[in-house]
Amino acid sequence: MIYISFSNILSKSIGMKNGISESKFNSLCTKNQPLVQEVFRAKNKDGYDFLNLPNNTSIVRKIKKFVDEQAKNKWQKIVVLGIGGSALGTIAANSALNSGHERHKLHVLDNIDPDYISDFLENINISKTLFVVISKSGSTVEPMALYGLVKEKLADKFPNNYQKHFVFITDPKKGLLRKIAKEEGITAFDISPKIGGRFSVLSSAGLVPLALAGVDIGALLRGAREMREAIKKMKSAKNPALTLALSQFFMDIKRGKAMTVLMPYSSKLSRFSDWYRQLLAESIGKNKKTGPTPINALGTTDQHSQLQLYAEGPNNKLIIFFRILRHKSDPKLGDIMPKELSYLNDKKLSNILDAAYVGTAESLTAKKRPNLTVEVPKVDAKNLGALFMLFEFQVALLGLMYKVDAFNQPGVEHGKQITKKLLSK
Amino acid sequence: MIYISFSNILSKSIGMKNGISESKFNSLCTKNQPLVQEVFRAKNKDGYDFLNLPNNTSIVRKIKKFVDEQAKNKWQKIVVLGIGGSALGTIAANSALNSGHERHKLHVLDNIDPDYISDFLENINISKTLFVVISKSGSTVEPMALYGLVKEKLADKFPNNYQKHFVFITDPKKGLLRKIAKEEGITAFDISPKIGGRFSVLSSAGLVPLALAGVDIGALLRGAREMREAIKKMKSAKNPALTLALSQFFMDIKRGKAMTVLMPYSSKLSRFSDWYRQLLAESIGKNKKTGPTPINALGTTDQHSQLQLYAEGPNNKLIIFFRILRHKSDPKLGDIMPKELSYLNDKKLSNILDAAYVGTAESLTAKKRPNLTVEVPKVDAKNLGALFMLFEFQVALLGLMYKVDAFNQPGVEHGKQITKKLLSK
Repeated sequence: MIYISFSNILSKSIGMKNGISESKFNSLCTKNQPLVQEVFRAKNKDGYDFLNLPNNTSIVRKIKKFVDEQAKNKWQKIVVLGIGGSALGTIAANSALNSGHERHKLHVLDNIDPDYISDFLENINISKTLFVVISKSGSTVEPMALYGLVKEKLADKFPNNYQKHFVFITDPKKGLLRKIAKEEGITAFDISPKIGGRFSVLSSAGLVPLALAGVDIGALLRGAREMREAIKKMKSAKNPALTLALSQFFMDIKRGKAMTVLMPYSSKLSRFSDWYRQLLAESIGKNKKTGPTPINALGTTDQHSQLQLYAEGPNNKLIIFFRILRHKSDPKLGDIMPKELSYLNDKKLSNILDAAYVGTAESLTAKKRPNLTVEVPKVDAKNLGALFMLFEFQVALLGLMYKVDAFNQPGVEHGKQITKKLLSK
Repeated sequence: MIYISFSNILSKSIGMKNGISESKFNSLCTKNQPLVQEVFRAKNKDGYDFLNLPNNTSIVRKIKKFVDEQAKNKWQKIVVLGIGGSALGTIAANSALNSGHERHKLHVLDNIDPDYISDFLENINISKTLFVVISKSGSTVEPMALYGLVKEKLADKFPNNYQKHFVFITDPKKGLLRKIAKEEGITAFDISPKIGGRFSVLSSAGLVPLALAGVDIGALLRGAREMREAIKKMKSAKNPALTLALSQFFMDIKRGKAMTVLMPYSSKLSRFSDWYRQLLAESIGKNKKTGPTPINALGTTDQHSQLQLYAEGPNNKLIIFFRILRHKSDPKLGDIMPKELSYLNDKKLSNILDAAYVGTAESLTAKKRPNLTVEVPKVDAKNLGALFMLFEFQVALLGLMYKVDAFNQPGVEHGKQITKKLLSK
């Protein structure tokens, strides 16, 4: 079971100036427990529909059937055209769960950089590629521009059956992609209009490309369901979503920790931090005075990049570590190192990685820098599904704590209008 | 020529509360001009030796000779074992300058995650791989552990000539790697002890792997030389390093912008931000009260992830955009889009990307968020060399402004000691 260790935010570890007393933290958790129920009660409201996604086992069957049908096409590449919430969850799950050939089968084109796109398209066999176009509205500029580019190439090459190279994921009724799907006979899956992009990884938007890349999407949903039920049941500081949300809220509002660093000691979870960056930034970053800025980091890599700042720069961050308890493979060093490094002899890489985590967490604690640890039994589909649900729920709680609408993003409209006006000239 | 546009930090654009008047900014630049000379005068001191690296044309000849000799081995993969300053510059340059096959020839293993490493080693042909082991001290745990793992595999397979699969980059005289190189007859290049890891991209540490991957390292150094001379010559607000450093310092100290976001509108420069993260964080993050936290972002990708927060969250960031004026390839959309998106018809991807940059910069400015733009004529080796020098010099200036030693990193030692103790048990 995923477990949150929060002793390094307590005043007994880091003092009262930067920490919180254990009794105060417990009483805050108890006082805020009703917010958990408030989220569950809202489950049929727009946005909150993310809570219901893990129940949708019929979509799993439908997607599996689609994937089976596609087997005959022997796709070499599955290429997602999507950005933001239509990209980051898929990237996170592909990085966490796939390796080697499988991992490199799935690509997500989440930018329109000219060199990046032309380089990519020149280096794949487009005849052996399935494009998954994802946009809820069907009007997102980046994926639609790429769809236009790719469609021209495909229609040129296969005037009669370019359609089979596409699958769309979009609104069930409205928007441009839905219209094109109907007119041209392209398979299209639904995203519920009640789901925001950044909460959509467990909808078709994430499940279709991930299933095409061999991910066990049933296990993803199962993990999310179990986490949701644990959050419903667990009380006070035992509740992982409540503990995470309250720590972050308290540290921002009362202790001036304006940044939340996510630092997994796991290369597999490195892109999970990018997914969470959007989730937190877009959901909570709309109150001019408060709201944490998310930062991604990676252990041990960023010990050699960011750690100096975290340890001795301004004390304005809450750091959330991920510690992985079991790894799939675990190479072991022989009795080979010279005496200066003989302490590495006969160690597994996991021993070294974990010792590095402990060293970093203890030394930051000694320097009175608040930090939490999310302990993950192992990185697999079930636990990843649980992590998606945990952090989505945590952000919904933060919305209530900060008293902001966690499900809109009004701040990006103005720039879009300027861009459109420039291009329409 | 690389050019800094700073009008969006001025009070006429964003008001006095968040900006600075043009006359004040100009007078600050003039007043701080002597710091530029102070950096140049220090060029023979430890750390500041980064200023001299671009003059070392003899190392370019030596490296090119080595690369030519290696051609006979027909390496399929060049794999760097290095972390932090021995990794991030090489990753940044490979991402910026290489594409397709060339780009995927070079790998940097900058973590010891067990699954990541075993997955990687299982999926390459080790017989056709050259390993570049980089550690100035020769005692950095991560690359040395990986060296141990790889050496065991290679020595097992090629007991008599595993040595040719290695090249080391390390201190000219001291340390474990130098000792092993001598004892086992492994080619080793020098890193001057006067260069810090995060300032070493233009030394052998970056140049050897990049030359092996086909990068024009002569052009990299030429660009860095030209930028250094421009910084020496240009006065006041025309000086790009001084302008960048003063903006960042003023915005942190006087306007509470505790974070610096680097947001290139260029996928090729996305990893440049990671290189700069280390440079800024380790160099300046050592004064408990002040010093900016670096954040990486990418246009347009992060418009769909971080922009909501940057636009309407706390106004506590300085955003530095990179705008690329010319691209190598530039796919153009046909007259294919339906009427809802007809404004995209006949547009090049660069038109859309640039309009997105303009929309974002203008809308952030309208919301009184300070932002700068680094205009880059195109992403090539010469301009990248110039960018490395510009930001290294800028950070040296920040060291003088913040009155901290930009070239040490005392804050990471404590954690390392704990890790070593744990592993020695």
